[in-house]
Amino acid sequence: MRIGTVVGNIWATRKEEGLQGLKLLIIQPIKLDGQLSDEQIVAADRIGAGVGDNVILTMGSAAVRSFSTTSICPIDAIVVGIIDGKDES
Amino acid sequence: MRIGTVVGNIWATRKEEGLQGLKLLIIQPIKLDGQLSDEQIVAADRIGAGVGDNVILTMGSAAVRSFSTTSICPIDAIVVGIIDGKDES
Amino acid sequence: MRIGTVVGNIWATRKEEGLQGLKLLIIQPIKLDGQLSDEQIVAADRIGAGVGDNVILTMGSAAVRSFSTTSICPIDAIVVGIIDGKDES
Amino acid sequence: MRIGTVVGNIWATRKEEGLQGLKLLIIQPIKLDGQLSDEQIVAADRIGAGVGDNVILTMGSAAVRSFSTTSICPIDAIVVGIIDGKDES
Amino acid sequence: MRIGTVVGNIWATRKEEGLQGLKLLIIQPIKLDGQLSDEQIVAADRIGAGVGDNVILTMGSAAVRSFSTTSICPIDAIVVGIIDGKDES
Repeated sequence: MRIGTVVGNIWATRKEEGLQGLKLLIIQPIKLDGQLSDEQIVAADRIGAGVGDNVILTMGSAAVRSFSTTSICPIDAIVVGIIDGKDES
Repeated sequence: MRIGTVVGNIWATRKEEGLQGLKLLIIQPIKLDGQLSDEQIVAADRIGAGVGDNVILTMGSAAVRSFSTTSICPIDAIVVGIIDGKDES
Repeated sequence: MRIGTVVGNIWATRKEEGLQGLKLLIIQPIKLDGQLSDEQIVAADRIGAGVGDNVILTMGSAAVRSFSTTSICPIDAIVVGIIDGKDES
Repeated sequence: MRIGTVVGNIWATRKEEGLQGLKLLIIQPIKLDGQLSDEQIVAADRIGAGVGDNVILTMGSAAVRSFSTTSICPIDAIVVGIIDGKDES
Repeated sequence: MRIGTVVGNIWATRKEEGLQGLKLLIIQPIKLDGQLSDEQIVAADRIGAGVGDNVILTMGSAAVRSFSTTSICPIDAIVVGIIDGKDES
């Protein structure tokens, strides 16, 4: 999984049906030295993350399948945790 | 998911059968600082995106499965949303 | 999907059984500015691409499943189209 | 798979249900020349790895499916081995 | 798929059960100009590759499923061919 910080929200009126009702956040990955990467990842969120939160992202098919077992969400990244703490040597 | 801008269309007469009838766009990813990456991603589109639109891309198996539940499309990227708005801190 | 140019063929006598009979091409990805990347991707091809052709590549599980529905090919990239044309703004 | 060194632990109280009870480690990938990459990967661990261990990581859907056959864990990286030895030419 | 050269072997006594009995090699990817990348990829091998061999690697879910149809191996890379020859323009 990846670590990043939530830097914004994003909307799309014209979209695939499977995205209906999903909250989409813009995440900026954080490197180990604390620097921010210039990438931007859009992830679905349903645990209440917001701008300024540091979060854990799961990417790829695990993200899709865990988010909905009945239908197939056209997503490839989800927020799976809001980080409380880290201890790095 | 990734954010990019549609920069063109692409055609292939000789192709895998599963690509028949699909509209393929060339997308240039956008970095967080607004700079364009030099990558080019080809994505299938069925929500009507066109050159100049900023879009959300889903990559990998989620793209395949959500695009067609009956047959297997040999694709690994789809346009899932045309961006109306973003609020970035 | 990715865009690249076919730069060669590759053979392996000692190989996984699932590769038997597959034609394998060496593809060099093309960046948006037309520059060639220094990566090399090996892809299976069954639509007749050859050295010098510009092609569309599908990567990952979509490549595997669309290439064979009966057995599992140990491949992660296939040529899905030979590019006739592109219109880039 | 990738090789990395465990540099820390990470916690998240607010998280996807599927993460409940999982031990999450922060891993820094090691390049071939022994240099550490500036990436940080979060991986689930159940074989007892700890800070300072060099480990083997499996990424993507293989990680998800091997970690739990009954439910779908929203993870995309797991520690699969604690390295005892390597012989590199 | 990727092209690389086998540079070593790797062992882990404490490991996920699914890795039992698998031979793990360290592979260094080769760029198109023949330069070696500084990445190191660990791949499972059952076709007899050894240090110094140039090999073809399959990554991701294709690797997992083709390696074992009965159980789920926690791997994401396998050696699928030992290269005899290449013709590059």
